[in-house]
Amino acid sequence: MAVTLGEIASRFDLTLKGDASAVIEGVCPLLPGTPGRLAYLVDRRLRAGLSQTQATAVIVSAADAAQLQTHALIAKDPALGYARVAQLFDPTYRFEPGLHPLASVDAAAQLGPGCYVGPAAVIEAGVQVGRDTYIGPGCVIRRDARIGDACWLSGHVYIGPHCQLGLRVHIEPGAVIGSRGFGLARSPDGWVEIPQVGAVRIGNDVEIGANTSIDRGTFADTEIGDGVKLDNQIQIGHNCSVGAHTAIAACVGIAGSTHIGARVLIGGAVGINGHLTVGDDAVLLAGTMVTKSIPAKMLVGGALPHQSAKDWRRLIIQLRGMDRTLERIRALEKAAGIKGADEGESLESDEI
Amino acid sequence: MAVTLGEIASRFDLTLKGDASAVIEGVCPLLPGTPGRLAYLVDRRLRAGLSQTQATAVIVSAADAAQLQTHALIAKDPALGYARVAQLFDPTYRFEPGLHPLASVDAAAQLGPGCYVGPAAVIEAGVQVGRDTYIGPGCVIRRDARIGDACWLSGHVYIGPHCQLGLRVHIEPGAVIGSRGFGLARSPDGWVEIPQVGAVRIGNDVEIGANTSIDRGTFADTEIGDGVKLDNQIQIGHNCSVGAHTAIAACVGIAGSTHIGARVLIGGAVGINGHLTVGDDAVLLAGTMVTKSIPAKMLVGGALPHQSAKDWRRLIIQLRGMDRTLERIRALEKAAGIKGADEGESLESDEI
Amino acid sequence: MAVTLGEIASRFDLTLKGDASAVIEGVCPLLPGTPGRLAYLVDRRLRAGLSQTQATAVIVSAADAAQLQTHALIAKDPALGYARVAQLFDPTYRFEPGLHPLASVDAAAQLGPGCYVGPAAVIEAGVQVGRDTYIGPGCVIRRDARIGDACWLSGHVYIGPHCQLGLRVHIEPGAVIGSRGFGLARSPDGWVEIPQVGAVRIGNDVEIGANTSIDRGTFADTEIGDGVKLDNQIQIGHNCSVGAHTAIAACVGIAGSTHIGARVLIGGAVGINGHLTVGDDAVLLAGTMVTKSIPAKMLVGGALPHQSAKDWRRLIIQLRGMDRTLERIRALEKAAGIKGADEGESLESDEI
Repeated sequence: MAVTLGEIASRFDLTLKGDASAVIEGVCPLLPGTPGRLAYLVDRRLRAGLSQTQATAVIVSAADAAQLQTHALIAKDPALGYARVAQLFDPTYRFEPGLHPLASVDAAAQLGPGCYVGPAAVIEAGVQVGRDTYIGPGCVIRRDARIGDACWLSGHVYIGPHCQLGLRVHIEPGAVIGSRGFGLARSPDGWVEIPQVGAVRIGNDVEIGANTSIDRGTFADTEIGDGVKLDNQIQIGHNCSVGAHTAIAACVGIAGSTHIGARVLIGGAVGINGHLTVGDDAVLLAGTMVTKSIPAKMLVGGALPHQSAKDWRRLIIQLRGMDRTLERIRALEKAAGIKGADEGESLESDEI
Repeated sequence: MAVTLGEIASRFDLTLKGDASAVIEGVCPLLPGTPGRLAYLVDRRLRAGLSQTQATAVIVSAADAAQLQTHALIAKDPALGYARVAQLFDPTYRFEPGLHPLASVDAAAQLGPGCYVGPAAVIEAGVQVGRDTYIGPGCVIRRDARIGDACWLSGHVYIGPHCQLGLRVHIEPGAVIGSRGFGLARSPDGWVEIPQVGAVRIGNDVEIGANTSIDRGTFADTEIGDGVKLDNQIQIGHNCSVGAHTAIAACVGIAGSTHIGARVLIGGAVGINGHLTVGDDAVLLAGTMVTKSIPAKMLVGGALPHQSAKDWRRLIIQLRGMDRTLERIRALEKAAGIKGADEGESLESDEI
Repeated sequence: MAVTLGEIASRFDLTLKGDASAVIEGVCPLLPGTPGRLAYLVDRRLRAGLSQTQATAVIVSAADAAQLQTHALIAKDPALGYARVAQLFDPTYRFEPGLHPLASVDAAAQLGPGCYVGPAAVIEAGVQVGRDTYIGPGCVIRRDARIGDACWLSGHVYIGPHCQLGLRVHIEPGAVIGSRGFGLARSPDGWVEIPQVGAVRIGNDVEIGANTSIDRGTFADTEIGDGVKLDNQIQIGHNCSVGAHTAIAACVGIAGSTHIGARVLIGGAVGINGHLTVGDDAVLLAGTMVTKSIPAKMLVGGALPHQSAKDWRRLIIQLRGMDRTLERIRALEKAAGIKGADEGESLESDEI
C-alpha cells in the first residue's frame, strides 16, 4: 500500500503542509522515524522529537506543526487523525476468502460471500455468518449463533449457542462468549445449577480482548452495546448489560445482573458487585472495588496506592489501632470538657 | 419437551394449586412471562409481578401463592424447586453420541458408550472416558487422563496428563486443568524449574467456569472436592485443595499449597496467599485479600469500597498523614497530662 | 530412567553420604517417601521428617544431613539441587518427533529437525521453527512467527503474527502471545482503533503460564527478557518490557508502556498502572496497586489485609469518619492552645 500525502489529506480531511506528491508506505514511531513512513505525536512531552524525526510526514496539531522539519498533516486531534490514516497501512485484517480443508463447517450452516474459515475451526449447524467475515484457526461457533458482516475472530475464539454478533465485531484469541452463567440454588445435598437459557448479544463495532469471558443470561441475553471496547481478561457475568461506547480496561470483573451505562470508562482491575447500575459517562479509576450503584458522570476511586513495605506495614498497624486512637480522642475530649460527636457512628454499618 | 403440571408436581414433590393437565414447554422470566412456560419468583421485591405474569405456572412459596393469578407450584425453596424443574427444559446438554471425523482419538484411548467427541478435539493415548460424556469441539485431553461418566466439556477445554475427573463434571471453554505449577528455585544463572509431577483430581458434580486454570501438584495432586462450583477466570495454584460443596465466584486467585475447607463461600476477586488454611463454612466477601489462615465459619472482609474520586483522594492523604495525626494526639495527651497508650505498637509489625 | 546416587552426585556436583550404587528411579515427597525415589527438604519446619522418610535418598543441607537415616545428597541449596536433579525424572517434556496428520502446517513454513506438531495445531505461512520444539495439540502459530529450538508449547497456545520466541521457551495452555494492544482514539462517533503493528519478542528460557496474555506493541515489540517466569492469568499490555529473570505470580495485570526491570519479584494479583518504571530487583508484595514508578531494590506493599467482617465494617466507618476525627483533633488543639499542623495537606492531592 502506497499513498501520496495529497491523497491522505483529502481522504481524511487533514490540512497538508508540505509536498502533496510525497509517498507514504507505512507507519512508524516519531523517533527515530523511518523515511517513507508516517508518524504522529503521541505525547506532547515528546514535542522535542518533531525536529529530529526521520519520518516522511507527521500528524500534528496546528500548534506543533511549526517545529516539524518534514511534511505535516495537521489535525485537530492528532491521535484520532493518526488512528484513521494508519488503518490504511495495517496488514492485520487482510485475508483471502475460503474454507480451509481442515475446517469443520456443518452442512446446515450458512456463510456469506467473502468469508474465511481457518484450519481446526468449527462451525456447527444453524450458524449464520454474514459476508467478509474472518473466522480464524481453532475458532468454535456453536449451533444457531449469528455473526454479522466483516467480523474478525482472530483464532481460538469460542461463540456459544444462539449468541449474536453485530457488524465489524473484532474478537481476540481465548475470548469466550456465552459461557454458562454462575447461577446456583442450595439444596441439602449441595448446589443445584439454575439453567442458563439466555445467550449473549453483541452490537456493532465491538472489540473483545484475549481471554475475556462473557456469560450468557439466565433467561434473557447478556448485552454488549454498539462500539463497546473490552480489553483482555475481563469477566462479565450473566444478565449484565454494557452501554454503547463504554471502554473497559484489562482484568475487570463485573458480577451478574449489573448494568453499565453508555460511554463509561472503567480502569484496569476494577471489580463491580452484582445487581448494580453504573450511570452513563461515569469514570471508574483503576483498582476500584464498586459496592454500590454509581450515578451518571461520577468519577470514582478506591484503590489503596502502593507504599514502601515499611510504610505500608505501619499504616496497617495504625488502621488496626483505630479503635484505640478514637478512645484516646474521647479521653482527651472528656478531660477538656468537650462533648464528643461520634456517638451513633455504628448506625451506618448496614450500608456497607 | 412438554410436561403437565401434574407430572412436574409429583416428580419434584411440589404442591400444585391449579390445573394438573396444563402443559409446560419451557421456562421464562416472571415478567412479562410466556404462556406455556414456567417462571419463578427470583427476588421477593418482585412479588408485585405475580399478579401480572403471563407464564402458565410459577414456582412460589406458600406465602406468595395467593397473589398469583395463574397456576402455582408451591415449594419451600422456590429457587431450588425451579433449578430442579428447569433442567427438564434446558437444551444445553443434549447431544447425539458419536466421534466426529475431524476428532483425533488415539487408538490407545478408551471411550465408554454414549460419548461424543467433537471436531478438532484431541484425545491422547491412555485416556479413559466413562459413558455418556460430551467432549466438545477443540477440547484436548492429554495422555492417561481419566474422565468419568456423564461429564460435559463444552469445547476448548484442556485436561493435562494423568488428571482425573469424577462423574458429571462440567467444564466451560478455555478452562485449563493441570497446567504446570509455578515452582522455581533460584540459581546464580537464574530460575530453575522444580518439576511438577503431580496432577489434578476433581470429584463428582464439579462445575468449572470459562478460562479458569488449576495447576497440577508438585508431587501429589491438586484436589477439587465433590460438588465444588468454580466460576470463570479463577486461578488455583499447585498443591491446593478445595473442600466439598465450596463455591468460588469469578476472578479469585488462590496461591499454591492453600487448603480451602468444605462449604466455603468465596466472593469475586478475592486473593488468597499460599500455604494457608480456610476453615469449613467460612465466608470471604468480594475483593478481600486473605493473608492469614481463617477459622471455620468466620465471615471476613477487607476491600476498600469505592468513593467519589475527591473523597478517595482526601482519604489517601489522611492515611498518608496518620503518623502526624498520632503525633498530634500524643502532643495533646502530653499537654493534658494523660499517659499515651500506644507505645510498643510496632511490635505487631511482624504479624502482617 | 534409573540412575545411581554416585552418578547423580558427580553429575550435579553434590556430596554423597551413603551408597553410591543405590539406584534412583523417580522423585517423591519427603513424607512418607517412596523406596527407590529421591526427596528433598522443602521447608525446614519439616526437618523432623528426615528420620522417618522411606525415600532412598534425600537432598539436604550439610547441617541437616546428620538427622537422616538414609542416603544423603548434600547441597548448599537443597531446593536448587533438587530442581536440577529432579528434571532427570520428569516425563513431562518427552515426545516423539513428527507431524500429526490432523495438524495443518503451511507449505511455506519451515520446521527444524526433531519437532512435533500435534493434531488440530495450525502453523501458518512464513513461520520458522527451530529444532526439537514441541507444538502441542490445538496450538496456533500465525504467519511469520519465529520459534527457537527446544521450545515447549503445551497445547492451545496462540502465537500472533511476527512474534518471536527464543530458545527453550515453555508456554502453558490458553496463553495468548501477540493479542491486539488496547489503543483507542476518541471520535465524535465513538472509539477508533489505533493500529497495533508491533509484535511480541520473547527471550530464552522464558516460562509463560496458562491463560496469560501479552499484547503486541503499537509500533515496536513488547519485550520479555531472558529467564523471565510468568505464572497463570497474567495480563501484560502493549509496549511493555519485562527485564531478565523477573518472576511474576498469577493474576497480575500490567498496563501498557510500563517497563519492569531485571530480577524483579511481583506477587500475585498485583496491578501496575501504565507508563511506569519498576527498577531492577524491586519486590512487589501480593495485592499491591502500583500507581507510580518504583526505584530499584525497593520493597513495596499496599493491600489491605482481611479482617473479620465486623472489624472490617467498623474500619470502613472509621475511615469514612476521618474528616470528623481530624476536626475533633483540631478542636482539642484549639482548646489546648496548641497550633495545629495539618494546614496545607490538600496540596499533595495532585500526586495521587
